[in-house]
Amino acid sequence: MAPLSPLAPASFPDMPVIRGVRLASGAAGIRYANRDDVLLIAFDEGTTVAGTFTQSATAAAPVLWCRRALDGGHARALVVNSGNANAFTGADGQVAVDRTARAAAELVGCPAESVFVASTGVIGERLPVDRLERALPDLYGALDGDAWHGAARAIMTTDTFAKGCTRRCGLKGKAVTINGIAKGAGMIAPDMATMLAFIATDAAIGPSTLQALLTEACAGSFNAVTIDGDTSTNDTALLFASGAAGNEPIDDIDDPALVAFRTALAELALDLAQQIVRDGEGASRFVTITVSGADSDLAARRLAMTIANSPLVKTAIAGADANWGRIIAAIGRAGERIELDRLAVRIGGTLLAAHGAAVTDIDEAPVAAHMKGSEVVIDVSVGGGDGRFTVWTCDLTHGYIDINADYRS
Amino acid sequence: MAPLSPLAPASFPDMPVIRGVRLASGAAGIRYANRDDVLLIAFDEGTTVAGTFTQSATAAAPVLWCRRALDGGHARALVVNSGNANAFTGADGQVAVDRTARAAAELVGCPAESVFVASTGVIGERLPVDRLERALPDLYGALDGDAWHGAARAIMTTDTFAKGCTRRCGLKGKAVTINGIAKGAGMIAPDMATMLAFIATDAAIGPSTLQALLTEACAGSFNAVTIDGDTSTNDTALLFASGAAGNEPIDDIDDPALVAFRTALAELALDLAQQIVRDGEGASRFVTITVSGADSDLAARRLAMTIANSPLVKTAIAGADANWGRIIAAIGRAGERIELDRLAVRIGGTLLAAHGAAVTDIDEAPVAAHMKGSEVVIDVSVGGGDGRFTVWTCDLTHGYIDINADYRS
Repeated sequence: MAPLSPLAPASFPDMPVIRGVRLASGAAGIRYANRDDVLLIAFDEGTTVAGTFTQSATAAAPVLWCRRALDGGHARALVVNSGNANAFTGADGQVAVDRTARAAAELVGCPAESVFVASTGVIGERLPVDRLERALPDLYGALDGDAWHGAARAIMTTDTFAKGCTRRCGLKGKAVTINGIAKGAGMIAPDMATMLAFIATDAAIGPSTLQALLTEACAGSFNAVTIDGDTSTNDTALLFASGAAGNEPIDDIDDPALVAFRTALAELALDLAQQIVRDGEGASRFVTITVSGADSDLAARRLAMTIANSPLVKTAIAGADANWGRIIAAIGRAGERIELDRLAVRIGGTLLAAHGAAVTDIDEAPVAAHMKGSEVVIDVSVGGGDGRFTVWTCDLTHGYIDINADYRS
Repeated sequence: MAPLSPLAPASFPDMPVIRGVRLASGAAGIRYANRDDVLLIAFDEGTTVAGTFTQSATAAAPVLWCRRALDGGHARALVVNSGNANAFTGADGQVAVDRTARAAAELVGCPAESVFVASTGVIGERLPVDRLERALPDLYGALDGDAWHGAARAIMTTDTFAKGCTRRCGLKGKAVTINGIAKGAGMIAPDMATMLAFIATDAAIGPSTLQALLTEACAGSFNAVTIDGDTSTNDTALLFASGAAGNEPIDDIDDPALVAFRTALAELALDLAQQIVRDGEGASRFVTITVSGADSDLAARRLAMTIANSPLVKTAIAGADANWGRIIAAIGRAGERIELDRLAVRIGGTLLAAHGAAVTDIDEAPVAAHMKGSEVVIDVSVGGGDGRFTVWTCDLTHGYIDINADYRS
């Protein structure tokens, strides 16, 4: 196991119980020895669900299953395994998902279509679904509302720390809670980082509104981070709402009563997404890149992502080099319109380039000090437009090569 | 200076004289000490010219100059400097190009618009154009048809070897010669790899036909290689035709007499492009990726480039890991339509995945042996379409991080 990321939070947060949501994790021996690799979450009747998934054309079998299951808008269980992605496994893979969902449905007493499934791990190997099926009854017997930390650990691959976050807010006169766990950026040969995030709340919110809330929250969080530009066959974010808080059910995304909930959910999603970056393979610095002045937010996002995914920018940051020339080059190839004579680059707040040329007579000391810290802030203005977007990423170090160039076995 | 790339060719080729083309290189002290950093090439009257340039929105001043100069279709001189990219240098940068062109034009006796200029090196620093101007008269006095090796050396940045190639063929009953030099993939902090290629022939070919020939040759060569997906502010390929071979001038790209010339030019461009990959920063393996069965050649190119630029694929190759799961993941996120049930991946000729699932009972020994060699061949079929494209790349190793994460000094 890799050493704890230097950018890891001090500790896993204290996660409260979410009424209507019970969890259990255990060891099914999918791939790892001596650690939990299966998570079962059971939801009370009436729980609504929303999901967002990888856009990959080679999406894994559980992703295809969840997309269909989402049509019902309701969920009674979630089964997650680590160690095997059940991706590129053909008809076998679909059978494995089907059997997993049926096994959980039988325990919980619901249709298989109310069971959601997610996997992360090796691509292209048969999922040992019999081991999953054998593990589920014990997990069902052990379900507990207070098992969030164990749940976050069970879904890890080579993540170096478990990722969780919790928020409380008011909704129609009731106090509601949102808990979330995530994994990502860890990787076991021979597969790739998969982003999984599971969020549950006791709020009562209708399925279509819940979907709108999740889509909105993902846009500025999970879809605004990047480790290496490689996306997975298995990326999945699911949001469950048990309704146990007893608030008057909400079924309109524009309901003003949702304002605090939207903020809390956005904060929680961003926190989880940033934890994923902080566990980026080999990461030694956490990098915030904001692009403003673009033609649109989408253009700003594309510019920011091009900078964030540039190996040259990322290696410069690893070397504590305030190499704004590489940022300029990345901007140039992003395929977006820019106004060269208004282009400005700030690193750690210091203006290094403006009006299409280098700023001369810079005091380099504060910039150098900033670059040597563990948090690097890059601000780029590309013109007079209103488009603005922030992405978070990490640097590219020898650690990344160490983790990913290892021989399989 | 970095050690010679393990993928370097055995030696620089023997480059013949191209009638109507004379070269000289020297040390102007632009940035480096004790090495040549300026190249002057003079062309006889009547020389035609074609060019292709970076698509970057932050293209450097010499690129902007060349695009305009190309309108004339004729060239009398080329001035190239290494050590400074003259990019993101604002109005100063344009003045520097103007002065360089005028100085060369005065020596050669031609309009400034017949002089082409290219730069490679640091971004955002003022080009010391006075040093360039001072160096040119001596270079002009030293012009020699037999100075190709020195020319290839003078345009290097941190390239570990000089890149040249030569071809001969017949054209309308005359023997014609094509010589080319290139640099790329080398990098000096704080700037990025720039691809420069200068090709000259003694054939007589009109400007618009020459442009069509260059565009065609670049598509399957310079535009089919990638080191790290980062493109430069300064990428430039120029093709000059002196006409001194005395062939009946050609001004139709479809002229059947051009067949041998097209083949020779394509071979030469591909050879130079592959030499650039062989000098990729930290490269330990040369990788050929062919995608077939796509909806179009363009779709195949995008798929192949997505695989070639995947840090996960590149690190797996560095680790001699035949990790086809990462290839599947890259294919999935390329944004192109594929037929999952016809997807097949071969490494070193061994079929590892087919019909949407892993091939079982593979003899892993030949695959493992292939992966440990210095040439890795990946073939991917994504469906029943006619689209096909090959790209060449290298692996991503600790050497890349070493070269690019160094402190600026």
